[in-house]
Amino acid sequence: MTGPQVVALGGGHGLYATLSALRGTCEGLTAVVTVADDGGSSGRIRAEMNVPPPGDLRMALSALCEDTDWGRTWRDVLQWRFATDGPLDGHAVGNLLIAGLWDRSGGIVEGLDWVARLLRCEGRVLPVSTEPITVSAQVARDGRVEKVVGQVAVATAEGRMRSLAIEPADPAVPAATLEAIADADAIILGPGSWYTSVLTHFLVPRVAAALTAAGPRTILTLNIAHEDEETAGTDRVDDIEALRAAAPGFAPAVVLADSSHDEPALRSRVEQWGARFVAAPMRAEGTVDRHDPLVLREQYRDLVTWVAGGGALAR
Amino acid sequence: MTGPQVVALGGGHGLYATLSALRGTCEGLTAVVTVADDGGSSGRIRAEMNVPPPGDLRMALSALCEDTDWGRTWRDVLQWRFATDGPLDGHAVGNLLIAGLWDRSGGIVEGLDWVARLLRCEGRVLPVSTEPITVSAQVARDGRVEKVVGQVAVATAEGRMRSLAIEPADPAVPAATLEAIADADAIILGPGSWYTSVLTHFLVPRVAAALTAAGPRTILTLNIAHEDEETAGTDRVDDIEALRAAAPGFAPAVVLADSSHDEPALRSRVEQWGARFVAAPMRAEGTVDRHDPLVLREQYRDLVTWVAGGGALAR
Repeated sequence: MTGPQVVALGGGHGLYATLSALRGTCEGLTAVVTVADDGGSSGRIRAEMNVPPPGDLRMALSALCEDTDWGRTWRDVLQWRFATDGPLDGHAVGNLLIAGLWDRSGGIVEGLDWVARLLRCEGRVLPVSTEPITVSAQVARDGRVEKVVGQVAVATAEGRMRSLAIEPADPAVPAATLEAIADADAIILGPGSWYTSVLTHFLVPRVAAALTAAGPRTILTLNIAHEDEETAGTDRVDDIEALRAAAPGFAPAVVLADSSHDEPALRSRVEQWGARFVAAPMRAEGTVDRHDPLVLREQYRDLVTWVAGGGALAR
Repeated sequence: MTGPQVVALGGGHGLYATLSALRGTCEGLTAVVTVADDGGSSGRIRAEMNVPPPGDLRMALSALCEDTDWGRTWRDVLQWRFATDGPLDGHAVGNLLIAGLWDRSGGIVEGLDWVARLLRCEGRVLPVSTEPITVSAQVARDGRVEKVVGQVAVATAEGRMRSLAIEPADPAVPAATLEAIADADAIILGPGSWYTSVLTHFLVPRVAAALTAAGPRTILTLNIAHEDEETAGTDRVDDIEALRAAAPGFAPAVVLADSSHDEPALRSRVEQWGARFVAAPMRAEGTVDRHDPLVLREQYRDLVTWVAGGGALAR
């Protein structure tokens, strides 16, 4: 069989869920991963070695490991975190291995490909940039606007996000990353931390251009709310407004939302955007904000086929 | 073919040279590695995590890597040392990976076997003990006797070594290590740091018993001298005396020395011991103390065949 080529963009746990849902359903799967993290083991390695933070890349590679004793063992080893009273405390073994590969050869993409070979990954993991990115935001709170710097600070800032920026403003993007987006039959954005794992992709100019061109092949998955159910649909409208502000020329083919957010305000906002609105019950049982991977898999299987078949263009 | 099963004991660069010489010449090759190191990256990991120092084990695994792009790349990555201004400075990537495997599963031998599978090693690497060992020595100097603690301190101590001890006195030895020694057709001891990489094996009671039983299958390779050529042969007699004091019941089948040490005093001391004396020009060109790996290989090929064929017993 020659199934579709799919690219999934994001970072952290959201991307892990997406990749877990997608694996086995497509012929070629590529993860494009944010490199803005500045916290924890990743942030310490980034600061000490001036390399991209490896953690979100490690998570994506782990999600794609071969489902054998070999693949699962190396995944578990790379995901393992030291717990000591010394300087290794908190470091994930895979972060150190990725940093070592990078430090030895200087090749960011090459190093990730070696880890993918180690894990016998079903797919490829690429960074959105080969340079570490620092994200900052203007946040309005109590009538003042403050600048918040760094992914951890932005993701946890209280208040209303006004604008988002990155440093460097036009970071280097691997050719392989741009080619993967250009060649994909379907592209999946979200779920994930909206400002730091979804919107940041549009702050990298070369990736923003590639994603804008790929809009008619893109599925945008909205988050399942942390918030009060009453306001969840409205909050998703806010998320879309924030994305439109960050990516003015971009419109996806499909917006996938949880059934609990299926409100006229959200539906009409998506349709004004020119996108197909799809709602399905996706919340994983016993969680407030996690997608059920099996439901995601079903939805992606259908929607990837629809998008790859030119469904959006035929509407 | 079913060639001989060979076990090589040691640590550091001496064992690396032995393994490089032996690989490809025998059917089953097992390295048994000292775990007394307390310096550098290994010493820091040992102190921070209370695990055996991984460095000498990593070196032995690297010596046995598959001679392919895969094997050489992973060897180079595991041997790579970070050079930073921060806490990762000086750590070898392979030391961190081995420590991670150990920390995750608790299985010392199992973790080393996973690295051997990663490198597709030609052979197996086992520790002499699953516990970190601290070596100490009584050193006579300027008419006084001082206790020196730790491998780095012992290896660099000036003066005359009086006695050597380890802590714990009877450390745990993996069953696989004892089985490898018991089942070997030939056992190779030395070259290497005489007190800390050769004699220390005899301070571990269970290993000493196994090696004593295996004497008639053992090839002891003497060091090539740092010292003045005039005294080198005499200094090798001193080395043998030190080994006899540490391992009273042990006698090897063969003692292999450099031609420059072929003096009556050494030859007769070896023959008194009941061992065959073999001298060959083994010094690597341009070095003062390194064995030429190709010459070592030739010697081992012949001597392993002789020992494995019961040559020592037939004398």
